[in-house]
Amino acid sequence: MAMKKKPVTGMKDILPREMEIRDYVIHEIKETYKTFGFSGMETPCVEHIENLSSNQGGENEKLIFKILKRGDKLTSAVDKVNADNADVLVDGGLRYDLTLPLSRYYANNANDLPSPFKALQMGNVWRADRPQRGRYRQFMQCDIDILGEPTILAEIELITATTTLLGKIGFEKFTIRLNNRKMLKAMAAYSGFEEKDYDSVFITLDKMDKIGLDGVAEELVSQGFSKESVDKCLDLFDKVSEDVAGVRYLKDTLGEFLPAGVAEDLETIMTSVDATKSADFKIAFDPTLVRGMGYYTGPIFEISMDEFGGSVGGGGRYDEMIGKFTGQNTPACGFSIGFERIVMLLLEKDYQIPKQGEKIAYLVEKNMPSDKMLKILQQANEKRANGEQINIAIMKKNKKFQKEQMEKEGYTVFEEFFVDRM
Amino acid sequence: MAMKKKPVTGMKDILPREMEIRDYVIHEIKETYKTFGFSGMETPCVEHIENLSSNQGGENEKLIFKILKRGDKLTSAVDKVNADNADVLVDGGLRYDLTLPLSRYYANNANDLPSPFKALQMGNVWRADRPQRGRYRQFMQCDIDILGEPTILAEIELITATTTLLGKIGFEKFTIRLNNRKMLKAMAAYSGFEEKDYDSVFITLDKMDKIGLDGVAEELVSQGFSKESVDKCLDLFDKVSEDVAGVRYLKDTLGEFLPAGVAEDLETIMTSVDATKSADFKIAFDPTLVRGMGYYTGPIFEISMDEFGGSVGGGGRYDEMIGKFTGQNTPACGFSIGFERIVMLLLEKDYQIPKQGEKIAYLVEKNMPSDKMLKILQQANEKRANGEQINIAIMKKNKKFQKEQMEKEGYTVFEEFFVDRM
Repeated sequence: MAMKKKPVTGMKDILPREMEIRDYVIHEIKETYKTFGFSGMETPCVEHIENLSSNQGGENEKLIFKILKRGDKLTSAVDKVNADNADVLVDGGLRYDLTLPLSRYYANNANDLPSPFKALQMGNVWRADRPQRGRYRQFMQCDIDILGEPTILAEIELITATTTLLGKIGFEKFTIRLNNRKMLKAMAAYSGFEEKDYDSVFITLDKMDKIGLDGVAEELVSQGFSKESVDKCLDLFDKVSEDVAGVRYLKDTLGEFLPAGVAEDLETIMTSVDATKSADFKIAFDPTLVRGMGYYTGPIFEISMDEFGGSVGGGGRYDEMIGKFTGQNTPACGFSIGFERIVMLLLEKDYQIPKQGEKIAYLVEKNMPSDKMLKILQQANEKRANGEQINIAIMKKNKKFQKEQMEKEGYTVFEEFFVDRM
Repeated sequence: MAMKKKPVTGMKDILPREMEIRDYVIHEIKETYKTFGFSGMETPCVEHIENLSSNQGGENEKLIFKILKRGDKLTSAVDKVNADNADVLVDGGLRYDLTLPLSRYYANNANDLPSPFKALQMGNVWRADRPQRGRYRQFMQCDIDILGEPTILAEIELITATTTLLGKIGFEKFTIRLNNRKMLKAMAAYSGFEEKDYDSVFITLDKMDKIGLDGVAEELVSQGFSKESVDKCLDLFDKVSEDVAGVRYLKDTLGEFLPAGVAEDLETIMTSVDATKSADFKIAFDPTLVRGMGYYTGPIFEISMDEFGGSVGGGGRYDEMIGKFTGQNTPACGFSIGFERIVMLLLEKDYQIPKQGEKIAYLVEKNMPSDKMLKILQQANEKRANGEQINIAIMKKNKKFQKEQMEKEGYTVFEEFFVDRM
């Protein structure tokens, strides 16, 4: 029997110090979103393989941890399997995100849910990615979604709730970058790109912050797009500003290419979020923001933080996904917070969780007779009933070292109990 | 693309009302165990298949959800597979309990953990059991364990912390049943059973509460055990009482068959827990208590509740499991709470979570101009910053129905905002 001590490849054991931060963030998430009227919900970690492989998950569908069939179904699958049809062996998989399971959940339970449904979902997801520093194959996601709300009240509430949360746990000077898929499409149409090419144009546009205007131009031309379209498109970006003036400039320039209301909605989201904000951040229009997933249909947004150098969360409107389950479209808008990145940032800056009382250690000399031990237990339990944190430990030979170790765990008060002094 | 609306077989979607109860219980668990000095920790949900299949998991090892290998390893496994060796296809599985992963975790991280380590672990586990009412294939477990503490301080603290928790969430008049594996073995030896038969004798003894003394006697005899041994053993049960007098009776009767200290320790656990208790329960000696898992080595215990008609948690000492990973035995004692059963009981009795302020709904007339909407948002966000729960919803045509629905979700205060009255 060879027992393996390490966790499976790409997954990690979580030590108490990190767990304390995680529990703190989870608690703040629950409390904050509750004040905005969100309700908790959960879906199973295992999802039908058919749903996971339904082309809603983009690249993630290549990274599914698949679950073997059991019993007779496995036996008959083994009979049929060859290198090209290994999927006959499986009937489920671990979810790679929370959005697809949420859509299934809503389709399954809509009659028992409020409308609109403001959902808060926290849970692990799994992706069999190549293991790399700081990225794990199991990680926690935290999503808030508003299902059934067609107006931009959804976007405003999602962004305000999330920025309020970030402010509470000590983040500041971050930026909410905002765009709209319809704005992107209008820019592409105005520039003369064909509709079939939009997605690949957008993928290149998304690299603007990494390779700059010239880099994007070069890449688009090398992909065979006409210099004229590329120039026309990039000229838009060159002239646009990241405030409401930028939105207005595009509205004026794009004219009929832009559906009615898109620019006005972006402007209202920006002014409303900015005027009611309780944290120190800015909201900026970013016409280069694309967001990877193809399912977005309207406004899209992302949180960028200089200290992280990347996105720590994002989301947008996806009005067409739930219809894939129900046959009837339901407006939907969601925000996914990069829980693991937030925890990592807090750990890196040695974030101190607001204290809730001292951690107290009772050190009890070895072989304390049971009648005397009883008194110690009684004293401890009375204090615990008042919410005090008391750890009763048997005194070690090297008491000094023992105390030093406990100090590292946050214990600040020590009481000692000796057999002959009780 | 056939999307499936239902969750996978045997797993369930959790609706907001249940989620509220779950979150409440989770919060009380974390807060209560914190006052006893427990630290949170987590292991991955996926575990090495070798560890899961190492004979530590008893019957659960037949119920593993197994995870398919990926990439080249899968291709070469498919080449070799036949009906008898399907396990070549897998390299991991979903954990079926939290004890085995805890042991691996401790072996992997002992240098970074306090000693003793008081661990609180909450997480999902999976068992491919036959689906049945009220039992699911994914369920949450909640375990507390003390690793590295050889004395019964561990047992006393685990039982006191857990009964304190149960009291806080409204349970009363339950019973902690207590026994010791060594007491069971001494009774078997005293009665003349052979050591190789102990486990099967214990399995039958465990049925005492279901089939009674006579039923147990009949079953043991039918299994081929000598009438003399069976009578001698059952005579013990007939005479023993469930208080400390019962422990003393067995100590006197079993004499040298019982290792030193076993009876005294049981007595001290009982008197200490009873004298320091903060909830309304009793602790009883139960010499028929066996606990299924073979890995227990000392005291064992279980919570029984009349209203449930079964165990809602249990645990015991397992001093030899961690050594399977490290080669060095580490004293260990744990208590697993039946989280799902507790949640089910609370839901069934329509438990009311202590209220934290009113739930307030702002109903906003449709097409509210953005400048007026801004004022509503501002007012809401100021109140939310003070912890008030405010749900902003667009007013529906059938406002009466809308309010009734929101009342069902717990909203008690409604404020209405009309375009022409702002």
